Amino acid sequence: MRWLQYMDKGVPRYGILTDAGITPVEGSPFDQYTVGNQSLPLSSVRLTLPFVPRTFYAVGQNYAAHAKNYPGAKAGTPAQGLPAKPDVAYRAHSGLIAHDEPVVIPRDSTSLHYEGELVVVIGKRGKRISRESAFDHVFGYTIGNDVSERSWQRIDRTPWRAKNADTFSPMGPWIETEVNLSRLQTMVRVNGAECTRFRTNDMLFGVDTFISAVSQYVTLQPGDMFWMGTEGTSPDLKPEDVVEVEITGIGVLRNRFVLEDA
Amino acid sequence: MRWLQYMDKGVPRYGILTDAGITPVEGSPFDQYTVGNQSLPLSSVRLTLPFVPRTFYAVGQNYAAHAKNYPGAKAGTPAQGLPAKPDVAYRAHSGLIAHDEPVVIPRDSTSLHYEGELVVVIGKRGKRISRESAFDHVFGYTIGNDVSERSWQRIDRTPWRAKNADTFSPMGPWIETEVNLSRLQTMVRVNGAECTRFRTNDMLFGVDTFISAVSQYVTLQPGDMFWMGTEGTSPDLKPEDVVEVEITGIGVLRNRFVLEDA
Repeated sequence: MRWLQYMDKGVPRYGILTDAGITPVEGSPFDQYTVGNQSLPLSSVRLTLPFVPRTFYAVGQNYAAHAKNYPGAKAGTPAQGLPAKPDVAYRAHSGLIAHDEPVVIPRDSTSLHYEGELVVVIGKRGKRISRESAFDHVFGYTIGNDVSERSWQRIDRTPWRAKNADTFSPMGPWIETEVNLSRLQTMVRVNGAECTRFRTNDMLFGVDTFISAVSQYVTLQPGDMFWMGTEGTSPDLKPEDVVEVEITGIGVLRNRFVLEDA
Repeated sequence: MRWLQYMDKGVPRYGILTDAGITPVEGSPFDQYTVGNQSLPLSSVRLTLPFVPRTFYAVGQNYAAHAKNYPGAKAGTPAQGLPAKPDVAYRAHSGLIAHDEPVVIPRDSTSLHYEGELVVVIGKRGKRISRESAFDHVFGYTIGNDVSERSWQRIDRTPWRAKNADTFSPMGPWIETEVNLSRLQTMVRVNGAECTRFRTNDMLFGVDTFISAVSQYVTLQPGDMFWMGTEGTSPDLKPEDVVEVEITGIGVLRNRFVLEDA
C-alpha cells in the first residue's frame, strides 16, 4: 500500500495511492483513520512530506565504498576505516522538503552532492526490540536525498550546515508498505543520466540491526525515521540540475537544484 | 514574565506564573493566546516541558575549562583545542523530560554526568539574522541538564546514546522572558551540595553569535531552542542522587536519578 500526504485547501491530508488515483483519508495511518470513497488524480494535487516525522535518525557510512572513500572526510585526519558498530546520528527537520520542491543552493556552496537513501518509517512504539521482531515496528519505506555540502563538511566540527541547511533534506514521494528489501536497487540520475546504482540492502548494518541497537536505549515512536545511508559518490551538482533518486518498488524522488537569490 | 506548561486533565496547557500562582492560558505564547482570570497554586499542578520544542540545537564545548579538559574526549585522539567557530550540533527530543521527573540510569551505565546549561528559546522566525538583531528573536530562557554518559561518549562514533538515551534531557521548570545575561550564574548541586558554579555568559561564542551564524543557513522558527553548553566537570552520579541546576533569575531544575528496573 502507498501512503502519501497532499495539500488539501492549504492543510496536509493523508491519502492512499492506487492505480485509480488518491483516496483521501481522515486521520493518520499512525493513529486512527477512515478511508474516503472518492478518488483524485495524482496529477491534480501537490504532494507534501509523506508523513509528519518525529525523530530523524541518520545513519552515516553504512555502505562499504562510500565509507572507505568518505567524501566528507576532514583534511589531515587519519582514515577512519569501516564503522565497527551501528552508531546512529541525528538530523534536524528544518531541511526537509517534499518531492518536486526545489533544493536551494547557497551562494557560498562550492561542492554540493546528492546522497540517495532508503528511509525506514517506524509505525509501532517499542523499546529493547530484538532483531527478530524489528520489522514488526516498520510501517513502510520512502526515499531521501541527504544533500551534502562537502567543503563545509570538511571544515566544520559538525554537519550542521553541510547536511541541515534549508531545503537539504528532500523526502518522498510516498511511503510504500510492501517491500522486499533484498530485491531493491537504488539509482540516482542527474538530468536523466544514471550516475549511481547500488543494491539498497548491501548495508554494513541492516535495518533490523539499527532498530534493535537504538531501541536498547531510546524508545522508538510511530513517525520516527531512519535514513539508512548511501553508497558511492556524487558529481558536484550545478544550478538547474534535476536529481532523481529511484528505489525500485518504492518510487522516484525528484528535485530541481536552484541557485539562491542574491 | 514566566511561562510554563502544566498537565490539565491529561493535556499540557500553557500558564503564566506570578506570585499569586499560575494563570491558565488558552493557546500558545508562540502564536495567539488569551489569558484566563483564575489562578492555581503552583504546588497543585504537575509541570511538563515548559513549551513544545521544535529543532533542538546543542552547543558543545562552549566554555573554556570544559572544552580544554573535555570529559567526553575519545581515548587516543589528540586534544582538539578550543573550537574556532560556532558549529552547532543537534539532539533528539526523545530524551526530554520535565522538572521533577526521574532520570533513569541504564543498568550498563558506568560514568553518568550532569551538564547544567542555559536554554535559549526562539520566539520569532528569521533567516540571515544579524548579531545586532539576534536578541529580537529570543522569546526567553529556561534551564537544561544535558545528562552525559562518558564511557559511551568515548567509544561511540556519535553521542546518540551518551546524550540522547531516554530521560537524558531534563528541561524546565519554566521560561523566563526577562533576563540580564551578564548577571546570571549557573550553580549545580548534588543532594544539596554545590559542585559547580560559573558565570552563565562566559561563553566562547555567545547567544547572539550562535543565532546569527546558524540563521545564515537555516531558518529559525518559534519553538526552536539552543542549549548553550556547560562549564567544568561533574562527579559520577549514583542512583538516588538529586541534581539541581539553578540559574539565578530563572529558577531551579531538579531531577532525581534512579536506577533502571532490571
